[in-house]
Amino acid sequence: MERKGSLMTYRPDIKVLDATLRDGGLVNCFRFTDEFVKKLYLANLKAGVDYMEFGYKASTDIFKEEDFGPWKFCKEEDLRRIVGDNDTDMKIAVMADVGRCNLERDLLPKSESVIDMVRIATYITTMPAAIEMIEYCHSLGYETSCNIMAVSKTNTADLEIALEMLSKSSVDVIYLVDSYGSIFPEQVQQLTKLYLSFAEKCDKKIGIHAHNNQQLAFANTIEACSMGASFLDATIGSLGRGAGNCAMELLLGFLKNPKYNITHVLRFYEDYILKLREEGLVWGYDIAYLLTGKMNLHPSSAIQFTNEGRTDYADFYHRIFDMEC
Amino acid sequence: MERKGSLMTYRPDIKVLDATLRDGGLVNCFRFTDEFVKKLYLANLKAGVDYMEFGYKASTDIFKEEDFGPWKFCKEEDLRRIVGDNDTDMKIAVMADVGRCNLERDLLPKSESVIDMVRIATYITTMPAAIEMIEYCHSLGYETSCNIMAVSKTNTADLEIALEMLSKSSVDVIYLVDSYGSIFPEQVQQLTKLYLSFAEKCDKKIGIHAHNNQQLAFANTIEACSMGASFLDATIGSLGRGAGNCAMELLLGFLKNPKYNITHVLRFYEDYILKLREEGLVWGYDIAYLLTGKMNLHPSSAIQFTNEGRTDYADFYHRIFDMEC
Repeated sequence: MERKGSLMTYRPDIKVLDATLRDGGLVNCFRFTDEFVKKLYLANLKAGVDYMEFGYKASTDIFKEEDFGPWKFCKEEDLRRIVGDNDTDMKIAVMADVGRCNLERDLLPKSESVIDMVRIATYITTMPAAIEMIEYCHSLGYETSCNIMAVSKTNTADLEIALEMLSKSSVDVIYLVDSYGSIFPEQVQQLTKLYLSFAEKCDKKIGIHAHNNQQLAFANTIEACSMGASFLDATIGSLGRGAGNCAMELLLGFLKNPKYNITHVLRFYEDYILKLREEGLVWGYDIAYLLTGKMNLHPSSAIQFTNEGRTDYADFYHRIFDMEC
Repeated sequence: MERKGSLMTYRPDIKVLDATLRDGGLVNCFRFTDEFVKKLYLANLKAGVDYMEFGYKASTDIFKEEDFGPWKFCKEEDLRRIVGDNDTDMKIAVMADVGRCNLERDLLPKSESVIDMVRIATYITTMPAAIEMIEYCHSLGYETSCNIMAVSKTNTADLEIALEMLSKSSVDVIYLVDSYGSIFPEQVQQLTKLYLSFAEKCDKKIGIHAHNNQQLAFANTIEACSMGASFLDATIGSLGRGAGNCAMELLLGFLKNPKYNITHVLRFYEDYILKLREEGLVWGYDIAYLLTGKMNLHPSSAIQFTNEGRTDYADFYHRIFDMEC
């Protein structure tokens, strides 16, 4: 299959989305300092990042505010405290989980909000609810994406029906999400081709959100890119749940568009990401995550194993092996 | 281009080579305890590994014995202390660098040695010397490989001449070696295709030895595999110079041949590799290695930077950027 673009050029359709706060928030309950968030915003701006995702638009009916930092809820006043009116070229994104938000109450019309894009996260089984949310956000004036999670657990026939539903919706971007860090570049190639076969006929874009369980988050991201995906998610220092994400510093080191500048990402990494590690936050590739990725399992058992400071990997492997059976 | 095999099956031509001692020896001057080496040998045996590389066959005229552990020299008596007569299906490999060994003096005829394969490491500029060494080892009865280092710095026209020379030689395996961790899976695909176009016509095999500077060692290894490479190098825990290698635990987690068993690798990792880290040995992916990889530079500046415990990555980037210019 034809690759789009070459290693020497760039495609103007490529958009880089920084998910550091949103996926990273899953590690620290969204408790980032305002300084961290502000400096990240400035670093992303200088680095040429196209979209910055601030967190979730979760419902306070479901989650207690005192259990989380502000980026679990992304209230308009919290966003504006950081970005003002965001009079920049970088767009602001938030994520909304099917079944975990109250957008009718919590989302302003686009004309009154600094948010540009709402990313609807759904499992394949809740596509009708996802489509309803997409249409609602679209009617308020937002760009939308649909992030179909755990694609590695999804039956291809079901996936094709979901993609057909999305191709008839108002959604702007359809995301391939490797939630468990299970899939290999060969599979990314086939999946990107499948997603594009639905998306291209109705002028929608494809995105990729990868996890690093098998040290493939970057490889899978550039494979999807090369096959035609336009929206590429990354986080600085791979900050994110479990094995983390595609590292922004790897991605910007790869992309050839002169607008991207890795220096500001490196400075943020050395000034702020390293500090999170020093403070005891744990994330990133480790053997336990490799094993849940290999077994196509949710990383929760590996997160618990890692948080307990355990290193009996062989026993862990055989324990989750039984879980799978 | 046609892929060879599928993600559900296995190719019997695939051979896994454990380079933990040889590439790892570059981190600790080959000072592994006999217990470490013996347990690694047993772990590899149980894991179904096909070749175990013990170290270099370096000349004591060039390197002082007191500066290194035994695996810099791989004397017959040291090997036999670990493997006896190696009455197993796993083959023993050693590496010989062009210009740094004295094989006429130091290599026994195959019939008197437990070594099965001599891997000749060369830069493209010393191909005639490499071929001479290959023919000598072949005449003694050994399997041979030619590991053309730093392929990312090599002009394609020169590479084609080298491959033509090798195709006329007695070498058994020709290795694609990404010494600087610079190349991307798309390039691995093209290079594997090029190597195979020379190798297949004279029934030679292709191998890959990848480095993890851009978290692509595993991705590049399975890409080469999928395109037809048969010999796959890996090290447990990625142990190896700088950013390290393709992790054995990732590779055996991927390969489908029932002979491979990841459990014994995991046990060795938790019992012995973690201990090396605790003792202060430093290796593996880090931002400084990403940057030398991205810039297609030898990792030496990043190794120094890392050993000094520095984290001013942005400044390091601009320093090596100037080096490149």
